[in-house]
Amino acid sequence: MNSAHAQMSVDANTINRIADEGYNRGQVVNLAEYLTDRIGGRMTNSPAMREAEKWSQSMFRSWGLDVRTDAFEFGRGWWIESAHSRMVSPRPLELHSIPVAWTPATKGPVAADIVVAPIRNVRDLASWKGKLKGKIVLVSYPEPPKDDLGPAFKRLDDAEIGKLNAYRQPSYDPERPEMLKRYLELGKELNRYMAAEGALALVKMSRGNNGLVHGEGRFYKVGETPALPEIEMAAEDYRRLARLAKTGPVKLEIDSRVHFDDRDTNGYNILADIPGRDPKAGYVMAGAHLDSWVAGDGAADNGAGSVVVMEAARILSALHVKPKRAIRFALWSGEEQGLIGSSAYVAHYLAKRPVSTDPVLAKMPSYYWDTYPIMPLPGFNDMAAYFNLDNGSGKIRGIYAEGNFAAVPVLRNWLAPFDSLGASKVVAAPTGSTDHVMMTRLGLPAFQFIQDPLDYGSQVHHTNLDTFDHLRTEDLRQAAVILATVLLQAADSDQPLPRNVLPSQPTATDPFLYRDPKND
Amino acid sequence: MNSAHAQMSVDANTINRIADEGYNRGQVVNLAEYLTDRIGGRMTNSPAMREAEKWSQSMFRSWGLDVRTDAFEFGRGWWIESAHSRMVSPRPLELHSIPVAWTPATKGPVAADIVVAPIRNVRDLASWKGKLKGKIVLVSYPEPPKDDLGPAFKRLDDAEIGKLNAYRQPSYDPERPEMLKRYLELGKELNRYMAAEGALALVKMSRGNNGLVHGEGRFYKVGETPALPEIEMAAEDYRRLARLAKTGPVKLEIDSRVHFDDRDTNGYNILADIPGRDPKAGYVMAGAHLDSWVAGDGAADNGAGSVVVMEAARILSALHVKPKRAIRFALWSGEEQGLIGSSAYVAHYLAKRPVSTDPVLAKMPSYYWDTYPIMPLPGFNDMAAYFNLDNGSGKIRGIYAEGNFAAVPVLRNWLAPFDSLGASKVVAAPTGSTDHVMMTRLGLPAFQFIQDPLDYGSQVHHTNLDTFDHLRTEDLRQAAVILATVLLQAADSDQPLPRNVLPSQPTATDPFLYRDPKND
Repeated sequence: MNSAHAQMSVDANTINRIADEGYNRGQVVNLAEYLTDRIGGRMTNSPAMREAEKWSQSMFRSWGLDVRTDAFEFGRGWWIESAHSRMVSPRPLELHSIPVAWTPATKGPVAADIVVAPIRNVRDLASWKGKLKGKIVLVSYPEPPKDDLGPAFKRLDDAEIGKLNAYRQPSYDPERPEMLKRYLELGKELNRYMAAEGALALVKMSRGNNGLVHGEGRFYKVGETPALPEIEMAAEDYRRLARLAKTGPVKLEIDSRVHFDDRDTNGYNILADIPGRDPKAGYVMAGAHLDSWVAGDGAADNGAGSVVVMEAARILSALHVKPKRAIRFALWSGEEQGLIGSSAYVAHYLAKRPVSTDPVLAKMPSYYWDTYPIMPLPGFNDMAAYFNLDNGSGKIRGIYAEGNFAAVPVLRNWLAPFDSLGASKVVAAPTGSTDHVMMTRLGLPAFQFIQDPLDYGSQVHHTNLDTFDHLRTEDLRQAAVILATVLLQAADSDQPLPRNVLPSQPTATDPFLYRDPKND
Repeated sequence: MNSAHAQMSVDANTINRIADEGYNRGQVVNLAEYLTDRIGGRMTNSPAMREAEKWSQSMFRSWGLDVRTDAFEFGRGWWIESAHSRMVSPRPLELHSIPVAWTPATKGPVAADIVVAPIRNVRDLASWKGKLKGKIVLVSYPEPPKDDLGPAFKRLDDAEIGKLNAYRQPSYDPERPEMLKRYLELGKELNRYMAAEGALALVKMSRGNNGLVHGEGRFYKVGETPALPEIEMAAEDYRRLARLAKTGPVKLEIDSRVHFDDRDTNGYNILADIPGRDPKAGYVMAGAHLDSWVAGDGAADNGAGSVVVMEAARILSALHVKPKRAIRFALWSGEEQGLIGSSAYVAHYLAKRPVSTDPVLAKMPSYYWDTYPIMPLPGFNDMAAYFNLDNGSGKIRGIYAEGNFAAVPVLRNWLAPFDSLGASKVVAAPTGSTDHVMMTRLGLPAFQFIQDPLDYGSQVHHTNLDTFDHLRTEDLRQAAVILATVLLQAADSDQPLPRNVLPSQPTATDPFLYRDPKND
């Protein structure tokens, strides 16, 4: 190893100027307010997402970056104008619910008695034949709540970060894609069957407690419109209905004004570049997904990552940096439906892989494929590093090296100045379920940051609580300073970051497809 | 001390029969479901409270108890038919809010631009003169959220219970009644001033985060109707409005259909007795307040206590017990407005105290008076014990002896069989803010149970989450078994429980009036 000083590719003065710009003239909080409060939740291809796409491009341009959009085929937009549900009898009561994404509106208020018909798989449907006509159907099991003894809000201590630094090879889990296929099949067939039986609307129970709702839905392709409106109800309200239904009739009213938007079925990734000195040296990249779910304002998931990426771009532009390699900033779309935007980037610039031979998987995002051989494209060698932000708004505590062992000491040296900001740990562990995995799976030096969890996993992820108040502004500033510095180090280093091997068989690290042995 | 066996006033077989009846033929969960799901939130004198009063009397009667109601002067009922609020611009968004209790309805939907006019005291009002006409006014400071690092759901371990067993004498805090007076004055004057300025409605910020709303209000006397409707909004939604208002106009729509009910301004305590063998031996008593706030279903506060008291009555009736002393079961009303029902019981049966010489306090519930001498009534000596339940639905872990040191070993002996149920600790510490304090303040042997906190303090107390799902059914069964046994022990013991001295000066233990030194 070289000495720490020799490893620093950026001069010390520049690091301090980045911190000064981020902390003393920072704009990340203003960006977060505009994106979450003013624009709000940004479902892929929704009008709000279109507004966010325009706004973020205009911001990048105002800072002097080269901006472009890359289109990819996605599907329809969808948005909520207003939505209410209430119990009409045995007593009047406002209920907390949200329309399920990409399901249709009610035609004005729909009021009807409920039937509790919990469905766990397609085989369960037949037993409800002839019993659902004119009813609103509650289709989830009203599983009772569990004692949740953990803290709702959490920061990591060193011991907890240390535990992350224990690499174990995930093992392939062929059940994962099969489970997803069954889930999608059940969702379609459930709606179709209930509609054929004459039901009026479907109600699902939230998978969280404490009044949280999500509204996640899956059928975003034009032509996939479900026949019946679906709403997701807070668990407390759902279970109350289910208990009351055991003692007598329960009448529910749903008024769900939602709209499809099929004007443009393309999704758009936004790419903004700071040019490098050496056109042959390739580029380094930071990315976060700009799209969100619909229940909140898409603040922690992933407004936070998006505005930190934007602020890093602003800081580096303000400093007029001229690194060896270009620096590219990406705001992805379609992440929540299966990393569709980042997958499109990979397929267009980095590498192709064979289409899945499974006819169902073949129609699903390539995130769910695990096919070989990987066929690198000419741009494969241009990507010198990718850093992803998508773990909420907690401050950066370090970097997941994602199984790229050789990169560990280099990344540690780059983080060395940030000890006092709590961000100096590099651990080998792999992470999944967000945009870097499409690159990590190719052996590229693509990483995600370790972040303090805050209340992201406990109550904010995809819920109505994903609003500005669940961000921590000091943490956003810290993350922007660190991201800007690490990007500049990667862009200006003499040697590019080590790459991982190009996989030729299932060895990838995404816990979606590969079972993490510590969970066995 | 006598041996443990000699201290038991109830034979061992009866204790086991109580446990068998409570655990194996228990009705407490059915009672809880009916009270919370079917009847729901029960503001004092509301139609739902009237329904609960009728239902609970009919249940006591069905178990063979002597039932009566005691009327006391309270004020008006109030209830919510339906209520919505939404942001109209800069973007459409459903907001989470609740009408403030005992404020009037909007006259249909009211839509207007907002003004953020945070008011901390009456002096703040003048600066808003001429700026509020035709506006919806946000009157709370949008204080930012704090990191909440504690567990949302909690059970006590022995060490934590041990810490409770450290008696310290509270010291009198003359600021407490003054603070309440200023708070009430501000509430009235705020509404009056804003109405005179031509404002259309007031919005307050919830004192909790994570979407919780409470809807607590204070002006329940006929003739005290505030001029303007008030709503309490979830903190996340309120702060979003306040941030957006800094950048441009924000339009809000409120549609609040609420109703006053002045048909009967009496509140009613429900008293149900199991007669004793010896009419001169007096009675022992258990109580819980049946009234609640309006945001949830009044489950943990205090449906839980109410149904445990009812179930203890059912169990003891089912066993046809014939104790020396009578056993009285009380369901109080008006607790949430200042222990008004239990205070009425005290003033009618137990003791008088001089009316406060402060003209404002004199009109407030006697809970806020601290006047001497206490003048015992003939019934003073009849009350041999009082046990209160009002700490949520967590299981009983022991008893607060409330500064009655001599009672500690007796209560410990009575709890001795319940070690394996986790309920064997007796601690000297005083507790406040619920119905036993009106008796403890007289030196009577009145106690509250130690209970596992669960999520009561963190998120359920007075909020929209106070629903059946936040009860724990196993804990309710345990509490009913323990309450029934302790009551029977107290009713059948040769010697009554030791009394405390009759105070002749401020020495009482209620933390509302008396500052707990550990908080200094």
